Amino acid sequence: MAKPISVETLHTRVRSIFEKCGMSEANAEAVAAVIVAGERDACKSHGIYRIEGCMRVLAAGKVEPKAVPELVDTGKAVIEVDANGGFSNPAFDAAKAALVARAKETGLAALVIRDCLHFSALWHDVEALAKEGLASLSMCPSYASVAPTGGKEPLLGTNPIAFGWPRPAEHPYVFDFATSVAARGEIELHRRAGTEIPDGWAVDKEGNPTNDPDAALAGAMLPFGGHKGSAISTMVELLAGAMLGEFMSKEALDFMGGTHLLPRHGALVLALDPATFSARSGRDPLAEGERLLTAIGAQGARLPSQRRFKARDLSLREGIELSDAELAQLDLFEAQGLAAL
Amino acid sequence: MAKPISVETLHTRVRSIFEKCGMSEANAEAVAAVIVAGERDACKSHGIYRIEGCMRVLAAGKVEPKAVPELVDTGKAVIEVDANGGFSNPAFDAAKAALVARAKETGLAALVIRDCLHFSALWHDVEALAKEGLASLSMCPSYASVAPTGGKEPLLGTNPIAFGWPRPAEHPYVFDFATSVAARGEIELHRRAGTEIPDGWAVDKEGNPTNDPDAALAGAMLPFGGHKGSAISTMVELLAGAMLGEFMSKEALDFMGGTHLLPRHGALVLALDPATFSARSGRDPLAEGERLLTAIGAQGARLPSQRRFKARDLSLREGIELSDAELAQLDLFEAQGLAAL
Repeated sequence: MAKPISVETLHTRVRSIFEKCGMSEANAEAVAAVIVAGERDACKSHGIYRIEGCMRVLAAGKVEPKAVPELVDTGKAVIEVDANGGFSNPAFDAAKAALVARAKETGLAALVIRDCLHFSALWHDVEALAKEGLASLSMCPSYASVAPTGGKEPLLGTNPIAFGWPRPAEHPYVFDFATSVAARGEIELHRRAGTEIPDGWAVDKEGNPTNDPDAALAGAMLPFGGHKGSAISTMVELLAGAMLGEFMSKEALDFMGGTHLLPRHGALVLALDPATFSARSGRDPLAEGERLLTAIGAQGARLPSQRRFKARDLSLREGIELSDAELAQLDLFEAQGLAAL
Repeated sequence: MAKPISVETLHTRVRSIFEKCGMSEANAEAVAAVIVAGERDACKSHGIYRIEGCMRVLAAGKVEPKAVPELVDTGKAVIEVDANGGFSNPAFDAAKAALVARAKETGLAALVIRDCLHFSALWHDVEALAKEGLASLSMCPSYASVAPTGGKEPLLGTNPIAFGWPRPAEHPYVFDFATSVAARGEIELHRRAGTEIPDGWAVDKEGNPTNDPDAALAGAMLPFGGHKGSAISTMVELLAGAMLGEFMSKEALDFMGGTHLLPRHGALVLALDPATFSARSGRDPLAEGERLLTAIGAQGARLPSQRRFKARDLSLREGIELSDAELAQLDLFEAQGLAAL
């Protein structure tokens, strides 16, 4: 194990990889920021492991490396940004200030991201809004890989949903999870290890419950929480797909022809201003929120994202430990860009 | 079993019971409407069984029988209505037109209901908004009876969340569920029957999983879907309690001193206009939604509320069958009002 690398140095290296791959400076900066944030938070599934996936989609010509996001703001509570075939992250960054301003002005605003490639954890965006004092909900479809509860064919995506709530003296309250009970990668790990998957994770092609990872991969994953989770996943398809006139998970899969490249679809972010909502009550909404959140901790329950924040604090203090293989890959990508694939 | 009673006749009878109990005509009308809708949909837990609970809170002087809801609309995306200590239903009715108009004008609007007694199913409101072509999300806290996942003390409510989506030629897509894995009444039924409750429903006072209904009732219920459901329930407390400056579930319980009367708190409804959100896409959001919803049905999965809509169609066609005991109770309440308690 080499000595830890600082968050700033890692950011600079990842950004230079994406620039080497032909991305504009702004796009390389935004995508590097979200990937390094994942690595910093020990959220390996959304860390530097994602660099290669981004490079593959660049190499395939399925993402616009120099896309310039276009803000469309007609003064309503709904603000739109066209990613113009680029990654979602620079589009969010380009629209964030307008979303924050509108939410504070009118109490509640939505951001629609159109025509983007989406691969990043949603907590990055809801945390950015929490820093501005806003509560927010973020959701997007993905690739059809989950059957509705009671069904048998992949129709829903893993459809993540994230929520952020500002805390005055702490990291924000943030959850961000897939509405599937497990990630496809977890089933793949069981397949490689030759172990059974737990009950409730998946059904086979005929819709029967299965513990066999091969049968699961040929069948469909299941939503978390039975019919309730299935209903929430369906809501994500409707609100962040159909409502926006952007792809739902089935269409995203059909369009890309497989899950080997990142999905292309839209995304929806709702931002709510607690100061506006509470104004007439005479109560401080964030102080009220603290009463609940500290009471949850006081009874020994874990708040979501707590492990992530702990890892973040450590990374910022002591740097990030990467394996020799990871460092060698960074060297290779930085030297050769897309030719390294 | 007496012959079925028509939905209209039942409505007239329930309204007259509430008028006999001292409620204003508008309040009696709104509360009767939601109760009869529950009975009509074979949703017995929110049907005429609820009349007595409403009467008890009237008799205790804990709800304002002639409350006049007050609309506060400053032209922002957030509209407020003060229930002024009355039931939530007339307050929603009083604010609905303003909410619909604002959502259509600006794409997205919120309704805050303040200082209300809340007992009714949320689907009634999201269905009303779906009829106007709007998607909506509705949520409210309740009484603290659920421990956060990993905890042991009741802190969260059963915190229902409902979602509605308009369908051109069908009943809307509607889900409405408690974020607890089961209702308290279901545990009570197991206690009376002397049967064990299923795994995952509850913990005892020490926070240990229990199958004993008595230990569960002395301990706490659990959220659905593990830590994901717990996070969603916490979100409901924050958005529909803390953010509004209204009671969260723990405060609602402390204020009323027990669960024997209906809880007093606020409620939050978000209304979204698919026509605004999709306008620039050139796609019809409701037609897109139909593609998903019909595909769910085509693979044999059940859509939420489907059983309820089937019962509704039957009730509207053939009337509602009530037991002799239920009819006798209606007679008694109608004749004596609060004196019947």
